[in-house]
Amino acid sequence: MKGISFNTWAYSSFPAWVPSYPLEEVIKRLAYFGYDGIEIGCASPHAWPEYLSNNRRSEILKLLKTNNLDVAAMLPAPGGGPGMNTASPLAEERKYTINHYKDVIRLAHDWECPTVIYIAGWIVYGSNQTDAWHYSLEAIKEIGEFAQKMGVTMAIEPTASDSNLIESADDALLLSEQAELDNVKVMFDTFHALYRNEVSSDYVYKMQDKLQHIHLADSDRLPPGEGECDFPSVLKALKDVNYDGYLSMEVGFHKREAEPDWYARKSIEYLRAELGK
Amino acid sequence: MKGISFNTWAYSSFPAWVPSYPLEEVIKRLAYFGYDGIEIGCASPHAWPEYLSNNRRSEILKLLKTNNLDVAAMLPAPGGGPGMNTASPLAEERKYTINHYKDVIRLAHDWECPTVIYIAGWIVYGSNQTDAWHYSLEAIKEIGEFAQKMGVTMAIEPTASDSNLIESADDALLLSEQAELDNVKVMFDTFHALYRNEVSSDYVYKMQDKLQHIHLADSDRLPPGEGECDFPSVLKALKDVNYDGYLSMEVGFHKREAEPDWYARKSIEYLRAELGK
Amino acid sequence: MKGISFNTWAYSSFPAWVPSYPLEEVIKRLAYFGYDGIEIGCASPHAWPEYLSNNRRSEILKLLKTNNLDVAAMLPAPGGGPGMNTASPLAEERKYTINHYKDVIRLAHDWECPTVIYIAGWIVYGSNQTDAWHYSLEAIKEIGEFAQKMGVTMAIEPTASDSNLIESADDALLLSEQAELDNVKVMFDTFHALYRNEVSSDYVYKMQDKLQHIHLADSDRLPPGEGECDFPSVLKALKDVNYDGYLSMEVGFHKREAEPDWYARKSIEYLRAELGK
Amino acid sequence: MKGISFNTWAYSSFPAWVPSYPLEEVIKRLAYFGYDGIEIGCASPHAWPEYLSNNRRSEILKLLKTNNLDVAAMLPAPGGGPGMNTASPLAEERKYTINHYKDVIRLAHDWECPTVIYIAGWIVYGSNQTDAWHYSLEAIKEIGEFAQKMGVTMAIEPTASDSNLIESADDALLLSEQAELDNVKVMFDTFHALYRNEVSSDYVYKMQDKLQHIHLADSDRLPPGEGECDFPSVLKALKDVNYDGYLSMEVGFHKREAEPDWYARKSIEYLRAELGK
Repeated sequence: MKGISFNTWAYSSFPAWVPSYPLEEVIKRLAYFGYDGIEIGCASPHAWPEYLSNNRRSEILKLLKTNNLDVAAMLPAPGGGPGMNTASPLAEERKYTINHYKDVIRLAHDWECPTVIYIAGWIVYGSNQTDAWHYSLEAIKEIGEFAQKMGVTMAIEPTASDSNLIESADDALLLSEQAELDNVKVMFDTFHALYRNEVSSDYVYKMQDKLQHIHLADSDRLPPGEGECDFPSVLKALKDVNYDGYLSMEVGFHKREAEPDWYARKSIEYLRAELGK
Repeated sequence: MKGISFNTWAYSSFPAWVPSYPLEEVIKRLAYFGYDGIEIGCASPHAWPEYLSNNRRSEILKLLKTNNLDVAAMLPAPGGGPGMNTASPLAEERKYTINHYKDVIRLAHDWECPTVIYIAGWIVYGSNQTDAWHYSLEAIKEIGEFAQKMGVTMAIEPTASDSNLIESADDALLLSEQAELDNVKVMFDTFHALYRNEVSSDYVYKMQDKLQHIHLADSDRLPPGEGECDFPSVLKALKDVNYDGYLSMEVGFHKREAEPDWYARKSIEYLRAELGK
Repeated sequence: MKGISFNTWAYSSFPAWVPSYPLEEVIKRLAYFGYDGIEIGCASPHAWPEYLSNNRRSEILKLLKTNNLDVAAMLPAPGGGPGMNTASPLAEERKYTINHYKDVIRLAHDWECPTVIYIAGWIVYGSNQTDAWHYSLEAIKEIGEFAQKMGVTMAIEPTASDSNLIESADDALLLSEQAELDNVKVMFDTFHALYRNEVSSDYVYKMQDKLQHIHLADSDRLPPGEGECDFPSVLKALKDVNYDGYLSMEVGFHKREAEPDWYARKSIEYLRAELGK
Repeated sequence: MKGISFNTWAYSSFPAWVPSYPLEEVIKRLAYFGYDGIEIGCASPHAWPEYLSNNRRSEILKLLKTNNLDVAAMLPAPGGGPGMNTASPLAEERKYTINHYKDVIRLAHDWECPTVIYIAGWIVYGSNQTDAWHYSLEAIKEIGEFAQKMGVTMAIEPTASDSNLIESADDALLLSEQAELDNVKVMFDTFHALYRNEVSSDYVYKMQDKLQHIHLADSDRLPPGEGECDFPSVLKALKDVNYDGYLSMEVGFHKREAEPDWYARKSIEYLRAELGK
């Protein structure tokens, strides 16, 4: 594996408004806890592309290198103001979202990040699954081609707990095949598997040929080891399939009460201990 | 009072992605339940200004009139991708957010809506209360002047449960006074008062001279009457101070499990019964 | 019965600091809800005797009369800064507390209140029950004699959930007999009976000859009818023994989340309905 | 750091009436558990100034020295009978409270205690934030000047969970600046930071230049390490800013069920282990 990474949502204003730490601060904290990578949610106050001048991008890259922290992955924030639904029946929203993905990919390129996560959207009332799927496939094709030129791999994520289009491992694999691009792969999040009452280690074996990335989160978005997901099985499965990406925590961002440092510290302590066994 | 209104968040993709109903559908449903007004959250899929051509704006206005539904108030969606924090230490974010407010005010003007809600932002780690307050005051002054020209009144909302800058009735009143504009008033949400363990009817009396709008939500964002907020006191206080705005429900948008029609129906049933006593 | 009364703790800063309403405001609210009496906790901001000039006492009496509200009972606030433990091993504290009771009795006299509640204190580590009982008996004798001259009746309350000296109906009755004064009687609070898993209607029959006052509170200090105490039995027992005092609510003061108006309204609605049956 | 200290509330009658241990007993127990300091709540039965003769003050100082226990800090008990609200609209209460603070400062002087905590009061219904802030500022100025002559430093504490005036780090810092006295500094309590869903280590950095004292308490007033506050981050932050005060536990006083010895023992065990890492 490439190492252990932590997603910035817990330190940002998505979807709760607070707490809200600047990206520079988050980089320093994650490095202090011993993380190898950072996964960056491209929302304010961290990385809304329009707010990041070339100058500031360079400074942040420098800071990342000083702190020995790689950018493990990046992703947009769906569900907020502009929606960011590539499966929307609104042509304006689809276009805006595709352009936003391109901005995120440019930013990934600038920060030497190999992977951008693709959230395939959701079915709005009045439209149907066939249309929504079609729109999302068109989008991932256009986005994927752009990403290919920038040297970035897209990872389609099933998001059962938040949406209604790409919900399972099979959904993600099918969309990925239909995209017909080498750099369009898949990933999954243990939390979404738990939401479907499915077994995360099964996802690893099923997705193994295309598994680009993984999100670890225990039940209720707790740090791994604090809830009821069987992480030893997940880690064994990842070893079995020679997974060579990051173990990325996406935890503690779902409620204001969550103290980000507690999540960051507990997660890495648990994983280090398990991996060292 | 002008009547009873219902906020669209419960029918939209903020902050959860689903359920997601087009604005046209929400208009029809609220009219069917007997609402007098609709409060529109300016996020996709309902009303992200950039996605709304002049043509579509006219059609929606026509639909509102056919359904006898007034637009009671409008507001942006803070906390998502672009942040929308007028108190942000990032100059880029402040500028973007002020422009977005102007877009929302233009839309309010197009849909004959008298009131736009002002969310005063939040303190990002590393900045302090004094700076954040100053930025937000500068913003509401610029936004308020623009709104004045468009015939729109701004209503500053204390948002204790989501933020850390304007938390109480006193905070909102003070910012409003400092703005020194006749069309910059205040509002409050019973849910935020409950979060502070404060009494909503007290807010009515305290804010009475500048009370432009009100959000009703019971504990846990339930419909009024389903939790432990004393709504009869709130309604009596509003009568005492001759409140002449809308009673606007902002309920049921905080979790995916919430079924919007249940919230819309229960809310109006309870209020009609109480107002008829 | 004399009527229904409501204790001010829920509107004051004891033991939580907020919410905090001036006495004048509480008088108006209780009158509005239709209460016949008010029970006044003699703590700030309502009635710390030292803060009440003769002038202000007269104004408050006038306000009470304008609002047709009798003062049903008064009591000090034990447990705070000066302790107010008549069973304390500290001579200084016993003396201070006795003097404070005299101040409260003077205030009761000024406001035409017939009853002052006597909290018999608690055993401090290192002293024993015999000494504590003795101290408290000495205190109630001195206080009772003073009260007699002022035309006030003392009502000894068993306070099992907060103390360790006078816990049961029998404890209170014994202390009352030993005081050997006609104006030293007893009372009880359904909440303390519930704390001991005892039956409130049993207390009524046991205390009937000396029952001067009663506190009604459901489990968790909820309004009567919202918890698990059988109030119809209590009301029947009070009728059986021809109780002629007040039904006084002591509810909703135990946590900051409690909204006083909700407790005041729910309590009187329930009791009116039950008494009308 | 100066060492580890434990607040007496858990052993006293505030705000619950029991358990209730004399100060002498608490001193012996804390020394036995290995504490370096004791923080004394100035309420009965421990240290209501009026109950403490010069003779008894000397004896207690002797006992403290015999047990090698320093008095880390002292504070009054707000919210009980006399209120102790320096922001009260009642002139009588403000005067009483200021005098009480002077008594507490004299006692601190007698017991060689460097720090007295300032609770800035709360807004009573009918008054507003501006007036309440003004009253509290006047009070801390007068108290601070008196303390300066006695060689005592005042530490303003934000008390979000109990009040509504000084709630955040920024509030406390602003009041401290406005006091314009070198011996008026700030402190914070992790429990109040948790109540605001804020991060305690952030408070350390924000307050660092004026941080005189700190209260440690985990969620639900548990001993550090028993809840969900990230204490390793707090300890690291205190080290980063070269904090040289006490780590003072304010735990286990919020409910009668809490057994004080368990809180005292668990707290020091956890902190010793963490500090030794």
